[in-house]
Amino acid sequence: MRRLSPFTRQPRESVAALGEVRLIAAIRKWLGDTSPRSPFGIGDDCAVLPSVPGASLVTVDPVIHGRHFDDSVPPEAVGGKLLKRNLSDIAAMGGRPRAAVLAVTLDARVRIRWLERFYRGLAAAAREHGVKIVGGDVAEAPGVLAASLTLVGSAAGRRILTRRGARAGDWIYVTGELGASRASGHHHAFTPRLAEGAWLATRAEVRSMMDISDGLAKDLAALTPPRSIPDLEAGSLPLRKGASAKSALTEGEDYELVFAVASRADRGTLETAWRRRFPRVRITRIGRFRAIGKSRRGAASLSTLHGYEHFR
Amino acid sequence: MRRLSPFTRQPRESVAALGEVRLIAAIRKWLGDTSPRSPFGIGDDCAVLPSVPGASLVTVDPVIHGRHFDDSVPPEAVGGKLLKRNLSDIAAMGGRPRAAVLAVTLDARVRIRWLERFYRGLAAAAREHGVKIVGGDVAEAPGVLAASLTLVGSAAGRRILTRRGARAGDWIYVTGELGASRASGHHHAFTPRLAEGAWLATRAEVRSMMDISDGLAKDLAALTPPRSIPDLEAGSLPLRKGASAKSALTEGEDYELVFAVASRADRGTLETAWRRRFPRVRITRIGRFRAIGKSRRGAASLSTLHGYEHFR
Repeated sequence: MRRLSPFTRQPRESVAALGEVRLIAAIRKWLGDTSPRSPFGIGDDCAVLPSVPGASLVTVDPVIHGRHFDDSVPPEAVGGKLLKRNLSDIAAMGGRPRAAVLAVTLDARVRIRWLERFYRGLAAAAREHGVKIVGGDVAEAPGVLAASLTLVGSAAGRRILTRRGARAGDWIYVTGELGASRASGHHHAFTPRLAEGAWLATRAEVRSMMDISDGLAKDLAALTPPRSIPDLEAGSLPLRKGASAKSALTEGEDYELVFAVASRADRGTLETAWRRRFPRVRITRIGRFRAIGKSRRGAASLSTLHGYEHFR
Repeated sequence: MRRLSPFTRQPRESVAALGEVRLIAAIRKWLGDTSPRSPFGIGDDCAVLPSVPGASLVTVDPVIHGRHFDDSVPPEAVGGKLLKRNLSDIAAMGGRPRAAVLAVTLDARVRIRWLERFYRGLAAAAREHGVKIVGGDVAEAPGVLAASLTLVGSAAGRRILTRRGARAGDWIYVTGELGASRASGHHHAFTPRLAEGAWLATRAEVRSMMDISDGLAKDLAALTPPRSIPDLEAGSLPLRKGASAKSALTEGEDYELVFAVASRADRGTLETAWRRRFPRVRITRIGRFRAIGKSRRGAASLSTLHGYEHFR
């Protein structure tokens, strides 16, 4: 995948040369078989999703030029990242994705070829994960290149996992490796942990779960039970090649799962079953939640570390 | 509702002064009881929607500063319009709205007070129509003020109405009045036709339906059966006060319903039942779909009229 500047000074190459009607026809072509016909997809006032048993999951995340990607990221990777960011949220609840709608906001000087490669990258990721793109909107705004995707899913099994449920004493685990997400290209090349999240939701000893998007230090706070702190073992973090512990704690965009395991659980059974099911993805026990007042000396203090915070 | 410029040069009054964590806490306060606690609302990786029988409807529409609103529109009206644009799409299928997620993109100089009034306006509209705001995302981008809302609904009754189904000979009806939407303030003050759409979907003689957002001339093309044209009766358009026929055909943002009634139906029965159920909203028969080659002389030709088209 080659990089390509999203903006062009050649009017012939820009979306302005297409106009809305031909642009929408082009988008349908680029999305191909991931875009079903109306009323089950694009082309009516709403998309229609057939009924499935159980609760629905809904999440929304954008990608914005200058914020979540720049000219160095190939357009296919931007489209893929947009879907996968949202898939990671579905994975974090133990869900299965179903269908997505997409709102795109564009400067009229956006390059048609960039947009084609963006949509084709989105379609490839959608195909890989069995997601249909069922609706969308395209609007013009000067100086903007942004897309916001809403993903609808359902529970993969009987249980969904939320961020609540961990108790003091529970063990803290993470999937995969953390840190250096931007420098390594992981921030767009990652694979959302859908199968892993669905499997963890079937395990009674897993009490709560979320994905790591803003950095472990910040995200872990949301998983921490009341009157407790996360007590991480020094040197336990599974670092990506070239990543520092600080990057693993604060950089974010890891899109790995962090989950709490009941303190009384047989960890060996869980870890063995995991290795059998997911031989290529590691899980690592990085510490436990400890009631305040019982913090072990030497434990990493998270209070001075912050994950990525917008508007700062 | 007073107007208020969305941008400020006073750092203390801008969202940059809040930072993300306090901003999200403030948004939850502004949304109040329309924002349920996680996992049924904001605060987890996904929102969880309890299961309901029947198909789901999904639609997405944005509001963008400089495109769908400007400084003259009070912020409450912008928030209300964002939800109501999407409600109109649910109405157009004969649906009932359930829950919404909201992706907001902001310049760091956006005024906190503007944002508060925007969210409170959105919450008021959500409360009025029984919609919960169950999730969202806030991201920063220079020079942008945009919000994209995805609305999930379900069929209100046994049937949903799509844009397909009209046949040559069918009568064309519209609800309410058309034209001069921007000049009159209708574009943000309108009431989405939810009860009306749900009722029309229960009527067997109504074959297809959509809402009028881009202008009747353009939107009607989507309702027109193959090898047919819409043949409008001169002078039949229900014009809003001060509106020209051209404005009614091309301006858009009417958010009224246009629907096709079977040619053999007893129109008197339908019209009487309508008046009994909706005494304050008129319906008007504006013409019929005619097979090509049978166009009546003097019929308004739509071929030279276009609705609002982006990127032109």
